Order: sequence, then structure tokens, then C-alpha cells
Amino acid sequence: MRIFNQSAIRSLEKQARTNLINALAGIRPANLIGTIAEDQTTNLAIFNSVMHIGADPALMGFIMRPTTVKRDTYENIVSTQEFSINHVNIGIVSSAHHTSARFEISEFGACGLIPEYGSCIKAPYVQEASIQIGLKLAEIIPIELNQTKLIIGEIHEIRIKDETCLEPDFNLNLELAKSIGVNGLDSYYSLQKLAKYKYAKPNLPPEIIP
Amino acid sequence: MRIFNQSAIRSLEKQARTNLINALAGIRPANLIGTIAEDQTTNLAIFNSVMHIGADPALMGFIMRPTTVKRDTYENIVSTQEFSINHVNIGIVSSAHHTSARFEISEFGACGLIPEYGSCIKAPYVQEASIQIGLKLAEIIPIELNQTKLIIGEIHEIRIKDETCLEPDFNLNLELAKSIGVNGLDSYYSLQKLAKYKYAKPNLPPEIIP
Repeated sequence: MRIFNQSAIRSLEKQARTNLINALAGIRPANLIGTIAEDQTTNLAIFNSVMHIGADPALMGFIMRPTTVKRDTYENIVSTQEFSINHVNIGIVSSAHHTSARFEISEFGACGLIPEYGSCIKAPYVQEASIQIGLKLAEIIPIELNQTKLIIGEIHEIRIKDETCLEPDFNLNLELAKSIGVNGLDSYYSLQKLAKYKYAKPNLPPEIIP
Repeated sequence: MRIFNQSAIRSLEKQARTNLINALAGIRPANLIGTIAEDQTTNLAIFNSVMHIGADPALMGFIMRPTTVKRDTYENIVSTQEFSINHVNIGIVSSAHHTSARFEISEFGACGLIPEYGSCIKAPYVQEASIQIGLKLAEIIPIELNQTKLIIGEIHEIRIKDETCLEPDFNLNLELAKSIGVNGLDSYYSLQKLAKYKYAKPNLPPEIIP
């Protein structure tokens, strides 16, 4: 067993520490966030911090790093109040990772991904994504501890390209959608469905839903 | 393609809507949060909302649902200021899911998981977990939109049972750790490492780190 106490954590070299602390959060969803500027320039960026906030109202959020440098995604969301969340899948993982580079032009063209438009928001979806979500800004919550922000949007549109991913109870089969996960900033994982369990009861072992 | 606009989302039956909106967040880490009450009763509960907050200071957080009903995890964290985060792995997925039932006794005994103690926090770790993290409460941020709370802790101890999971650059190999992901509330997925990429540059396709 390897144990790091607080002083061992603090004395790690900066990149090692960043890697380890990021990795501890485990598997996270890999998503591309699409926005459009007022001058109609599209923007696309990969995020590993997308999270469920609530089902009613239907809210999702993500963490925006400190806006001490120019962050197009943040500026576009503040000015247009809209963004799209697109699940990264196995087929576009390299292009999706590429969007994290510092481009002076739209990441769509630069990384070989195609913008697609729905009817509820002006922000572009990623055509290659099997699961696309259109959101309007609901709230920006500053996290003073480290100058990040929790950006929360309300879901206005859900687009599921392949209906077989949608299970009868309205869960999604992420293995069929080929959605992927990311650990830390650079390690991508494919998903294999292990089991789905019924609502747990105290006196019975969890029952598997076939 | 199946499209849900806002009125289609709103008119979904409550459970279907909860499933769909939860599922959209994609894969999330499955973690067991361990706490101890002032009367020394241990508590263990599964959470799918653990997130990275920052590496320096080393912070992790998770979303606590509205505390309108009794939530032992929340009460224990408020009173003792400490909690542990333990990665769920393939071997304990059924026991981990079982902790979500409403027990009147400690979930450790009831679900067949063994408490283990470190030297930095009094809250119990899960002995069966390959990755264990000890935290002290740093901040509770209310999310007024839906009466949830973002609970943030500072990492005081990291325990990695099998050192082969720790990569030379201090990333973790989640496939070797057998850590799993969860989608929605009940669907568990195993992880298979696809690729690790170098820091992306604008003019080159992302390079894979072997």
C-alpha cells in the first residue's frame, strides 16, 4: 500500500500532484461543449466536469476554471446565454482531445468535427456525437476557494441519434452509445455495462434488472 | 433520431424524466462515502456525484441532496468535519449499491463491507476499496436552484492499496484498480483504458502516450 499524508501530497512536484489529485476523482464523463460568439464564430472545448444538478427543473452544470486567461466558452455563454453538451464517443476521442489545444480559429474545422444546429438554441451541436444536449444558462455560482465557477444550464433540448441507446425506462445505455469516460486530463476509457440494479432494500441483496 | 424539446421533457412521467436527465450526465465515478457519528456509529453511502475541485489546495466535492429528510452522511460531516471517499470496484458493486437502502444500523455490517482506519481522520475507510481518500470539511456551498449542497473537503490522506495502479507520472490506472463508473442511479459500468494523450497542440493531431 502507498500512503500519501498531507505533507507528502504538498511536497509532490506540481505536475505529479495535479495528475494524482485529478485522478482521484475517478472516471468522469468526456463532453464537448459547443458555443457561438456574437460574431457567429463557433467554439468547441472538451470538459471532464459535466455533472447532473437536478431533474426538475432539468439542470446540468460544469466547472469553469479561473477566468484569469481568455476562455471563449465562458465568454460565449455569458454573452449568448446558451451552450450545448455533446457526449464524446470512441470514434471522436482523438479529435475531442485536440480541442484542448489553444486554437485561434474554431475548433470545429481545426479538429475535423462538424457543427450541427437544432431548433432550440443557436449554439452548435457536434454532429458526430450520439447524445446532444441544448442548454440555456440558469446560474453561475462562484467557488471562492479556488476561483472556479459552477456554470449551471437548464436543458431545453435532448437529441439521441440512435434510439436503441434509449432504454424502455428512459435510462441510456452508454455502452451502445459508445460514450466514453476520462480520468484526469488525458486518459480515456471505454465503458462496458456490468449490471443494473433495482432500488435497494435493507433486507435483500440488490436484485439485477436483466 | 429521437428529439425531446422542453415541453416533451416536462411532460415525461416523473420516473422517466428522472432517469433520462440523470443518464445525460454520462458516466460518473461510483464512490462510497464513509463517516462516523459522535456516538461512534459508522455510516456508509454510495454517491455518484464526487468531483475534482482543485489540485492546490487539494479539494474534492460532492453534491448532497436536499436535507429535508434525515441524511446521516451530512449530519456526520457537519458534526465531525471529516469523511472518506472510497472508489467502488468490480468486486463490491452489489454491496455498494446495497448501501443506498434505508438502514437503521451501520451499512458496513449490513452490506458486508469492512471499516478500516487511517491515521489522519476518524471516519472509516472501506477496506475492500483499492483507492481510499481521507478528507476534512472545507466548505458547504448551497445551490439555491434546487436546494442541494456542494460539500467540499480538503484531502488529508490518500491510500492506494495496489501500487501498480499508480502510473509513473502519478496518474492512476482505473482499469487496473478495477474502479467502476455509474450512470444514473443504478447502471454500473467497468472501464477499459482506450488511450492516454499528450498535451494537445494546435497543428498536430494528438499523440498517444504508450
